[in-house]
Amino acid sequence: MAVERTRFAPGDLRDFVGRSLRACGAGSEDARLVGEVLVASDVRGIESHGVARLEGFYVDRIRDGIIDPKAIESVLRETPTSLAVDANDGLGHPISVRIMRRTIDKALANGCAVGTVARSNHFGIAGYYAMLALEHDCIGIASTNAGRLAAPTNGRELMLGTNPFAFAIPAENGDAFVLDMATTTVAYGKLEIAKRLGKALMPGWAIDAAGNPTTDPDAGMAGALLPLGGFGTDSGGHKGYGLGLLSDILCGVLGGGVFSPRMPPSRQILEAAITSHFFMAIRIDGFRDVAEFKRDVSRSLAEMRASEPAPGFERVFTAGEPEKIRAREHEQHGVGLDPVVVESLSRTAAKLGIEPPRRFAGP
Amino acid sequence: MAVERTRFAPGDLRDFVGRSLRACGAGSEDARLVGEVLVASDVRGIESHGVARLEGFYVDRIRDGIIDPKAIESVLRETPTSLAVDANDGLGHPISVRIMRRTIDKALANGCAVGTVARSNHFGIAGYYAMLALEHDCIGIASTNAGRLAAPTNGRELMLGTNPFAFAIPAENGDAFVLDMATTTVAYGKLEIAKRLGKALMPGWAIDAAGNPTTDPDAGMAGALLPLGGFGTDSGGHKGYGLGLLSDILCGVLGGGVFSPRMPPSRQILEAAITSHFFMAIRIDGFRDVAEFKRDVSRSLAEMRASEPAPGFERVFTAGEPEKIRAREHEQHGVGLDPVVVESLSRTAAKLGIEPPRRFAGP
Repeated sequence: MAVERTRFAPGDLRDFVGRSLRACGAGSEDARLVGEVLVASDVRGIESHGVARLEGFYVDRIRDGIIDPKAIESVLRETPTSLAVDANDGLGHPISVRIMRRTIDKALANGCAVGTVARSNHFGIAGYYAMLALEHDCIGIASTNAGRLAAPTNGRELMLGTNPFAFAIPAENGDAFVLDMATTTVAYGKLEIAKRLGKALMPGWAIDAAGNPTTDPDAGMAGALLPLGGFGTDSGGHKGYGLGLLSDILCGVLGGGVFSPRMPPSRQILEAAITSHFFMAIRIDGFRDVAEFKRDVSRSLAEMRASEPAPGFERVFTAGEPEKIRAREHEQHGVGLDPVVVESLSRTAAKLGIEPPRRFAGP
Repeated sequence: MAVERTRFAPGDLRDFVGRSLRACGAGSEDARLVGEVLVASDVRGIESHGVARLEGFYVDRIRDGIIDPKAIESVLRETPTSLAVDANDGLGHPISVRIMRRTIDKALANGCAVGTVARSNHFGIAGYYAMLALEHDCIGIASTNAGRLAAPTNGRELMLGTNPFAFAIPAENGDAFVLDMATTTVAYGKLEIAKRLGKALMPGWAIDAAGNPTTDPDAGMAGALLPLGGFGTDSGGHKGYGLGLLSDILCGVLGGGVFSPRMPPSRQILEAAITSHFFMAIRIDGFRDVAEFKRDVSRSLAEMRASEPAPGFERVFTAGEPEKIRAREHEQHGVGLDPVVVESLSRTAAKLGIEPPRRFAGP
């Protein structure tokens, strides 16, 4: 079951993503930003959203003319606290970094602000953008809609994506609360992993194509993901469904973009993603002294972490803490990538006529 | 199992709550607002947060000196887009209506705004406040922290309340998306109902006092509620835990109030509630033409509702729709209350020397 992983220094992966995107025609700053966001995902241990997606989600889509790597966004509407732009089918990461930064600037000038991006592409991990607010002593929020993979409560059709929300709140000494969560019970990748391992799904993860709950990976993959809370309403499935639709409305409808069911099914990898994004920043000192606020957030996080664990658990974590622990480890010892991902990076290098990323040498 | 319910016209219940609160010393406008919010909960079919709470949560706490019905809030900090107030142990409903209204006013003037309330008391249903934004063509958000009832993921101690979030988004012709959800799998009342009916809990609802998953109502009531997503992380319990802690930070920490674990355990009914609240409003026309936005929200809601149901389900609903259907029915035919609630209202009337509410006569 154990697969041999190859390790790469995060900086070398960022460099490779940047070179790949430049070779596809992206400007150097945009290419650099895609590398920043993709590799941040691998560094935080969220492999599904990292360089594993470089080839299929970005390079191939650019080469197939689905993503325009040179797109310039159009401003749809702007006020001192709002900004709505159309990404014009450009790469999701650079436009999202830019719009989140402008949203933060507006919040710094005016207290709070919201930005939306329509007709964009996959932007990677929502948490990256929410976290941009941290160093500005703001609370950051980010969401995106995505290709359809999930059924609504009581339903059986693919109507919503995994539509994540991320929230970032600064604490003392660089610590933070960073919640980055899909609004489905699990990501589609969990079904693929279960299938690969020959394991059953857990109840509440998926329904089959007829709309009945299933624990069979193949049936689930042919059916739909369930919203957070699982099947029906007994364990709160309507809450996950509600959050998923909330994301679709805040991103796709408020942003003036595409919303379900006009979103493509997620499995059709070479369709346009046409995702929309939502960003928000709130300045903390509109409410309290920032140092006091951070002290209390740190206190809250420390109290959660110090609370009694349930039998069989080492301790209680807070949102974003496991990712931060992994990030420290990965920055030091490199990111380990599966053979299938390493192969994809080599294939990408060959397609683009560039050098593949250097393997990790030290320390 | 069927209990005989007594029906009351919503207006008569509002009148009774108002008279009760005035008899306790609240000003007439504050008393009226408590009636508005409490009865809105019954009308929407959320009986747990309606007049069933009048005696224990409000009247008795005022009479015991825990809630100050004449409290005047102090402004802690204010900017054009932010407002932080201390409720000084006053009633939660009137201050929340006022601060949400001022938050909406600030959003109307400046695009978006956030308000917080510290040292307040139970404010009823979060959805009421979020919905105040609808008629102003704003998106409304509300949250509150609450007495401790839930354990964090991996934990066994009571560290968080059911900490709900509500989101309200206007659609065409008075329709709306209204998500009002506790961040625990279920409310504590579901455990009490299971016990009364002699039924097992569903997995993912609760742990026992030792921190192990349980389906025994007594064990769960002596233990803790689980976050939305259930036990551990396999079905996303860490997401519900994250949302619960998010609420506690946005309300209790950002608002400068009390945050877990200094919040009292929820079961100690005659302790101070010392809850904090969080409100936000976002002006829609900062992004799009309001009529186009509402048309698209209506289209999104209609598409969800028209999507194929799973076997055994009549159809797909959208957030807030079942409550709206019940509200129409209740406004016309009266709200049916359980004998135990009717008895509580009579006892309240006797305590305060006022007439009990008139029973429903027509139509």
